[in-house]
Amino acid sequence: MTTAKRDTYTPESLLSVAVQVFNERGYDGTSMEHLSRAAGISKSSIYHHVAGKEELLRRAVSRALDGLFGILDEEHARGGRAVERLEYVVRRMVEVLTAELPYVTLLLRVRGNTGTERWALERRREFDHRVAGLIKAAADDGDVRADVEVRLATRLVFGMINSIVEWYRPDGRGMGEREVSDAVVQLVFSGLRRDQ
Amino acid sequence: MTTAKRDTYTPESLLSVAVQVFNERGYDGTSMEHLSRAAGISKSSIYHHVAGKEELLRRAVSRALDGLFGILDEEHARGGRAVERLEYVVRRMVEVLTAELPYVTLLLRVRGNTGTERWALERRREFDHRVAGLIKAAADDGDVRADVEVRLATRLVFGMINSIVEWYRPDGRGMGEREVSDAVVQLVFSGLRRDQ
Repeated sequence: MTTAKRDTYTPESLLSVAVQVFNERGYDGTSMEHLSRAAGISKSSIYHHVAGKEELLRRAVSRALDGLFGILDEEHARGGRAVERLEYVVRRMVEVLTAELPYVTLLLRVRGNTGTERWALERRREFDHRVAGLIKAAADDGDVRADVEVRLATRLVFGMINSIVEWYRPDGRGMGEREVSDAVVQLVFSGLRRDQ
Repeated sequence: MTTAKRDTYTPESLLSVAVQVFNERGYDGTSMEHLSRAAGISKSSIYHHVAGKEELLRRAVSRALDGLFGILDEEHARGGRAVERLEYVVRRMVEVLTAELPYVTLLLRVRGNTGTERWALERRREFDHRVAGLIKAAADDGDVRADVEVRLATRLVFGMINSIVEWYRPDGRGMGEREVSDAVVQLVFSGLRRDQ
């Protein structure tokens, strides 16, 4: 029995509850009943806002994808030497990831069981491809090492950045967003070894 | 209805089937019924080999953990400058991960709902801690950059290495194990940027 509260949700605040539930239970494991309980409003109240859970998923991953693709339209991602644009994009990826943590976490966990999930995976691949293109251009300029294959380098760099969702918590007690983005840029571009 | 086949399993071959099912369905989502169906033998035949699914989990994550901790006992991990030991350990981590792919994948997905899972998480933390100690020692020697905090560097390096389970497939069609371990060592120690 759900103790229904008055529905004062906006599309944004309902989305924020749904994303939390999706991240905890997995999208597949979440029912409208779970969403109704977490939000404290009836299922029909939820249907007043959205057509169903897939629409909530689409809105949530769109928010993450818009944040990521938005980076590529920013001035420093569009002009200048490829390696500098790449550095800018890597830093901004960490910033978007930490700022939109639950949304990016959900995006990274999408499996591909529904049309919306497959669309999200396709968009993720497109974003990866755009960043791979920047690594390729920087390698062609001679600014990035040529002895690591571009696709492999892209996967490893994304692996490092995406792993941040596993431990970063913006509660002010752990590491700050700036410390994390600085560290990623240092490691991705210069590695651990101190210059001799 | 299960079409039971003659039980010709060894503990090893049964474990290999179980790990595959755990990785596909998640450990929590796997029942003895699922294991029985995947193995093609009755549940009681499985109980002839093991006490239950938690024993299978313990054996599987032990195999991954033994592989990882084994690295630290190898000669090149014990003698020499810290930065060289660290480089050796990073390369061997990638090798163990690719050689024991399903077992390490399972280890990395452990959530902590059962005693065995909590024990596995504890051992993982211990391994991370040992590697963090090497990074710290190499920084104290002046061989590793001091401007990235050790705990953060450890997390990011593990993030890069662990992400390999998401895409590496040892089917001979994609990248080879050597190409991957070389790339990880290059990126972790020297980064993407080409020396000027």
